[in-house]
Amino acid sequence: MRQIGKQEIEDIAIGAAVLGTGGGGDPYIGKLMALQAVEEYGPITLLSVEEVPDDALVVASGGMGAPTVLIEKIPSGHEVAQTFQSLEKYMGKEVFATYPIEAGGINSMLPLALAAQLRLPVVDVDGMGRAFPELQMTTFYLDGISATPMVLADEKGNVTIMDTIDNSWTERIARSVTVQKGGSATCAIYPMLGKNLKESGIHSILQLEEEIGRAIRLAKETNVDPVKEVLKLTSGFELFRGKVVDVDRKTEGGWARGVAKIEGLQAYKGENLEIRFQNEHLLARTKDRLLCVTPDLIAVLDAETGLPITTEGLRYGARCVVIGMPCHPKWRTEKGIETVGPRYFCYDADYIPVEQLAEKGSVAK
Amino acid sequence: MRQIGKQEIEDIAIGAAVLGTGGGGDPYIGKLMALQAVEEYGPITLLSVEEVPDDALVVASGGMGAPTVLIEKIPSGHEVAQTFQSLEKYMGKEVFATYPIEAGGINSMLPLALAAQLRLPVVDVDGMGRAFPELQMTTFYLDGISATPMVLADEKGNVTIMDTIDNSWTERIARSVTVQKGGSATCAIYPMLGKNLKESGIHSILQLEEEIGRAIRLAKETNVDPVKEVLKLTSGFELFRGKVVDVDRKTEGGWARGVAKIEGLQAYKGENLEIRFQNEHLLARTKDRLLCVTPDLIAVLDAETGLPITTEGLRYGARCVVIGMPCHPKWRTEKGIETVGPRYFCYDADYIPVEQLAEKGSVAK
Repeated sequence: MRQIGKQEIEDIAIGAAVLGTGGGGDPYIGKLMALQAVEEYGPITLLSVEEVPDDALVVASGGMGAPTVLIEKIPSGHEVAQTFQSLEKYMGKEVFATYPIEAGGINSMLPLALAAQLRLPVVDVDGMGRAFPELQMTTFYLDGISATPMVLADEKGNVTIMDTIDNSWTERIARSVTVQKGGSATCAIYPMLGKNLKESGIHSILQLEEEIGRAIRLAKETNVDPVKEVLKLTSGFELFRGKVVDVDRKTEGGWARGVAKIEGLQAYKGENLEIRFQNEHLLARTKDRLLCVTPDLIAVLDAETGLPITTEGLRYGARCVVIGMPCHPKWRTEKGIETVGPRYFCYDADYIPVEQLAEKGSVAK
Repeated sequence: MRQIGKQEIEDIAIGAAVLGTGGGGDPYIGKLMALQAVEEYGPITLLSVEEVPDDALVVASGGMGAPTVLIEKIPSGHEVAQTFQSLEKYMGKEVFATYPIEAGGINSMLPLALAAQLRLPVVDVDGMGRAFPELQMTTFYLDGISATPMVLADEKGNVTIMDTIDNSWTERIARSVTVQKGGSATCAIYPMLGKNLKESGIHSILQLEEEIGRAIRLAKETNVDPVKEVLKLTSGFELFRGKVVDVDRKTEGGWARGVAKIEGLQAYKGENLEIRFQNEHLLARTKDRLLCVTPDLIAVLDAETGLPITTEGLRYGARCVVIGMPCHPKWRTEKGIETVGPRYFCYDADYIPVEQLAEKGSVAK
């Protein structure tokens, strides 16, 4: 158990956006929400997953929808609390703590803001170890844990509770409600007992996010390469360096989908990288080589500062480094690949671990 | 208070489909559902609205979606009970009785089937005095009563609870959930206290439906004109007689929308009638004259038997009589016309009461 204050929030916001692999929401907005909540209600208690009683009710909080919408349609804070109140009423049980469903600039911050406001502890765990675009894409789902009862609320005050037969139905119904609510909404999701969270969650993710964020911040002060620091912490690989020359992006069906093209610079001159995304970066390849593919993590970092660039922040001319990081082993199982592998997203590629791809293609480590 | 058995169900199903003005679902399927429930669980208790205690919780039950879907995707019965169980859990209060939200072949029958199954009484009242395509189109809405908490369930077992800031948001969100659930679903809606139901509902609607259905049934036995009997009971007007020559129908956005063309026969030879519908018939006109427009009721009856034909039952060659009936006075207010008048449905026509249109055009009474 420890207290989370402003510095920790600043660092977690950055680190979470790195693991958010382009999705999970803008770290600047997420940070502001969490900072304001701490300003108003005081510091937040962070629990390790071992500190949660086995029979306690824990519930994830987060935003759902297209990040391109979320940067203009910011949660009011009020509706996040409302999702928890409605869920408690529906389940007839008090919530013990909250946790982030995924890593991301907003989705790691919303639970912190909510925790401050409702004076709940936050558990250092998530259900992805990265960000993914659909809500059944969790390690909880791999273990058969239901995403529902789930509550979805908008900033106007409309509340929707879903209780579905499986998590694909949750995704389907919740996505369409989110679109009706204006393309983004906040939710309380994956309510479960402490013992399930322990067994099926990805532990110590906020700690890793904080370490990544701190490394990027300190690199600037001590003049070391922030990208190298991130690669060390995540066992990652540098895949490419270049400048963004084209971004084709559509906000449709409650997602931001598209493809970004990056022209090689320095050692990569003459090559072109293509990154495909659906909220998150899912596949990176040059003309000849696959460099990294979901569920492994693809992050785009600013070449100078090492700060993560989200898909909605990709702009023509941006100088960037693209890195690949191995995903959590839970995703590298048969059911994991079936749930979040490249074929699920209709890419014509088999999953090959990033470290194997890096060896083959002699990508610089 | 009285008991409803098989004969009453047969009659109500027919009369409700007449007032359902083409929508509200197929009377044959509705009838089968209610008959089976009575067979299995025994007769149903029908209460007059005056018999409901002021502080009792009453909840409407019905189907939502396109009738064209509902004739193939029939409610299982199980999910109707589930909507009530979920609502009771969410509201933390026991339901005293159910009632139909509108008149219609299915939507007048579902509450009867549910009542038999859950051993609840049915109240002789509804919120429209006819059928309308959108769920905020109720006399409850005119008095500011919320449609939510509302529960929507499908035959697969997916349950969605909505708690919205106004009834237009309920319609918007519930419609999109219905589309995701396959284009039709069943709901528990407009939970309210007995005293609100008394003030804002349309009284004795099931009794009127039963009288209409009985008149049509007996007309056949006694060889009188069933259409004349219906006109007497509803203060209605014969608008047209002819044969269906064209039906242009699309099932889209959770509705059955379209236009039917009827070629005049007998006194109407040489004229053509056009009926526009969105689940329900909303406007009837010839080239020169408006004959009847929403919220007044337009029903298409079989020329021989007097049986109502729903929009999804309209077929080329069908010989029919089109009748117009004045709506309940609650709809003829400014807010009523704004909510369900022709301009709401984007028809370029002002509302004129059917009796005035009948006088002007010297339509046969």
